[in-house]
Amino acid sequence: MARHLRRAPVDVTLVDRRNFHLFQPLLYQTATGGLSPGDIATPIQHVLRKHRNVRVVMDEVVHLDARARTLVTREGELPYDTLVLAAGVANHYLGRDDWTPLAPGLKSIEDAISIRRRILRAFEAAEMEADATQRAELLTFVVIGGGATGVELAGAVAELARYTLRREFRSIDPRSSRVMSVEASDRILGELAPSLSVRASQSLERLGVEVMTGTTARAIDAAGVDLEVGGHRERVGARTVLWAAGVRAAPLAHALQEATGCAVDGIGRICVEPNLSVASHPDIFVIGDMAHVAYRGKPIPCIAPAAIQQGKFVARVIADRLAGKTPPTPFRYFDKGSLATIGRSAAVGEFRGMRFWGFPSWLAWLFIHLIYLIEFENRILVLIQWVNMYVGRRRGARLITEGG
Amino acid sequence: MARHLRRAPVDVTLVDRRNFHLFQPLLYQTATGGLSPGDIATPIQHVLRKHRNVRVVMDEVVHLDARARTLVTREGELPYDTLVLAAGVANHYLGRDDWTPLAPGLKSIEDAISIRRRILRAFEAAEMEADATQRAELLTFVVIGGGATGVELAGAVAELARYTLRREFRSIDPRSSRVMSVEASDRILGELAPSLSVRASQSLERLGVEVMTGTTARAIDAAGVDLEVGGHRERVGARTVLWAAGVRAAPLAHALQEATGCAVDGIGRICVEPNLSVASHPDIFVIGDMAHVAYRGKPIPCIAPAAIQQGKFVARVIADRLAGKTPPTPFRYFDKGSLATIGRSAAVGEFRGMRFWGFPSWLAWLFIHLIYLIEFENRILVLIQWVNMYVGRRRGARLITEGG
Repeated sequence: MARHLRRAPVDVTLVDRRNFHLFQPLLYQTATGGLSPGDIATPIQHVLRKHRNVRVVMDEVVHLDARARTLVTREGELPYDTLVLAAGVANHYLGRDDWTPLAPGLKSIEDAISIRRRILRAFEAAEMEADATQRAELLTFVVIGGGATGVELAGAVAELARYTLRREFRSIDPRSSRVMSVEASDRILGELAPSLSVRASQSLERLGVEVMTGTTARAIDAAGVDLEVGGHRERVGARTVLWAAGVRAAPLAHALQEATGCAVDGIGRICVEPNLSVASHPDIFVIGDMAHVAYRGKPIPCIAPAAIQQGKFVARVIADRLAGKTPPTPFRYFDKGSLATIGRSAAVGEFRGMRFWGFPSWLAWLFIHLIYLIEFENRILVLIQWVNMYVGRRRGARLITEGG
Repeated sequence: MARHLRRAPVDVTLVDRRNFHLFQPLLYQTATGGLSPGDIATPIQHVLRKHRNVRVVMDEVVHLDARARTLVTREGELPYDTLVLAAGVANHYLGRDDWTPLAPGLKSIEDAISIRRRILRAFEAAEMEADATQRAELLTFVVIGGGATGVELAGAVAELARYTLRREFRSIDPRSSRVMSVEASDRILGELAPSLSVRASQSLERLGVEVMTGTTARAIDAAGVDLEVGGHRERVGARTVLWAAGVRAAPLAHALQEATGCAVDGIGRICVEPNLSVASHPDIFVIGDMAHVAYRGKPIPCIAPAAIQQGKFVARVIADRLAGKTPPTPFRYFDKGSLATIGRSAAVGEFRGMRFWGFPSWLAWLFIHLIYLIEFENRILVLIQWVNMYVGRRRGARLITEGG
């Protein structure tokens, strides 16, 4: 949105807790040692350096006063004429917040580094473990949630074990690792056509992933997970459990609800007007994953193409209002489809009713993700590491580091 | 050493607390946002994957029993026939350990990420600071220690402020930052010829760095540093103080001294025999920065070329002993000289009495560092980022992340 306001007579202040823009779709590759954090993140100030009407501030919004048109941040106060909120979603443990440390989710760079550390440490610990049962637990990886993130993560962990680490240990054979993809509904990638779910399951199984649909996690502890499959419980000993089963709107949505009394959906997203503004607050917009936008009877999915289109739309509304023109309404979503990748040379996707799978759709996945990386330099860096990873089966960023 | 034992009839166990080999000479570029951690670090198992007689174990040695020839680690015990210690050096605050959190040193990946966070946060905080004095404190960076690390770090911080960040803020001008290089002796880069110290000072000053020789830090607190210059004290308000003034042998040297009663030097390094073994313990060797090796009347400097030569030498001694041949002795050091770089297109160096400076020596610096990066992939990644940094004045890894 800030980019599209470049020529409008406005001053934009962009507030973010972080100093960088994160390319979320490739975060699972950082979590599995394929890419470095710097490859998928770019300083926001750098992205907007030529936008002289944009000021970037690293700060956190804690409260908002819709009547006084003021944001209260950690560092002070920020008055506004028009407010656009795009704070996204966070991991959601469906009422089991105690699972947070046991089964980390994948939303931030810190999450990715922490997951990378867990996965790589498990192999190191297994190499030193004398007891066979303990070793099996260390070499079992459970990914809860069979959406795009869960499927991509499970595929990447299986590739790491089966190919990248194959020759690098002496006591263990990483290929004996167990990777499980657990999904509560009856198929993975539920947003795609059923035939593509079948293809995705087959691709995962070819990589050695056990796909368990109709399966729910009932309990998670440090040594494993209790699964419920078709009415009976099953214990799986696993030292690494990863969470990709649910998200909820960022806390800022709650602050907005308190300030304006607006409606929210079941996961806390703001239900916005057709022009993406908040009911009876035409000066406040919500875009991206944090907004619940009805479109042809169901909400627009939490994906980047929708957020990008919404940013562009709101920039247009703001500019037209200032120019005295009638702003466009309602927001029209152009569905660019969905695409999920499963390891090397397999992907499934859908676009306007057409279905894609196998190598061609994997190539399309590569190409689209490279194009949408925000910085040219990062495109080259990612491309080189992909050649290394997909041709040489190597992963260069396999570091176990402390902290974030 | 493990590499050079590839064809010897031995089993090698390589124990390291970390799972990666770190290319220390470029660590300051990670601390200043030029390179990602993954670019200068490679998993040890990957480096040695073709060495079937090497087992890599991620563990920490806490104690050693020289009589029983056993290492006690966090995870258990490791018996040995021959022991080679190469645990390097750590930051040393010359009796002021309370300065550790105030003035971080640059030894690990975590140090580099933490220094990067401090530096970048200072600019962000200055952008939001209304008070001019506070803003000046935030934009003042003091590097204590004028050896190669200190000089390279000060040069990189100045380049970051003066070129990379130049256009990226709206309230502050990063070019107004103050970068100070503080050195206790009468010249920086004391290991090189005096004429090269002069050239290095000039290069730093051209980048805007204030070079303060004959200056000692007397006190450090969260808001600045008290310097002593020629008998009188001077207060410098600075929120970022970095430490590059001293090192001391890793704690493992102390464990060895307790186990064998061997001699150590003033900074805790083990004084080894001419063949790099420990006195009256021909089965224990110490190599790298942790060893004090006398050579032509003074100790060999703590630099990578010396450590590499020592590793090769000890591998030869071990192989010859097993083959019943007379092992070589004493260790002969081939002095490959010194080289330090100061920002873009300037460096100073010395090799066998010849002196180099300016653009040609900077090119030599680039070339040598690329060659010694252990992995081919990393060479390409670093090269691309250097083009970006030195031609485009950009730094792609400018992320402020939490933790390590």
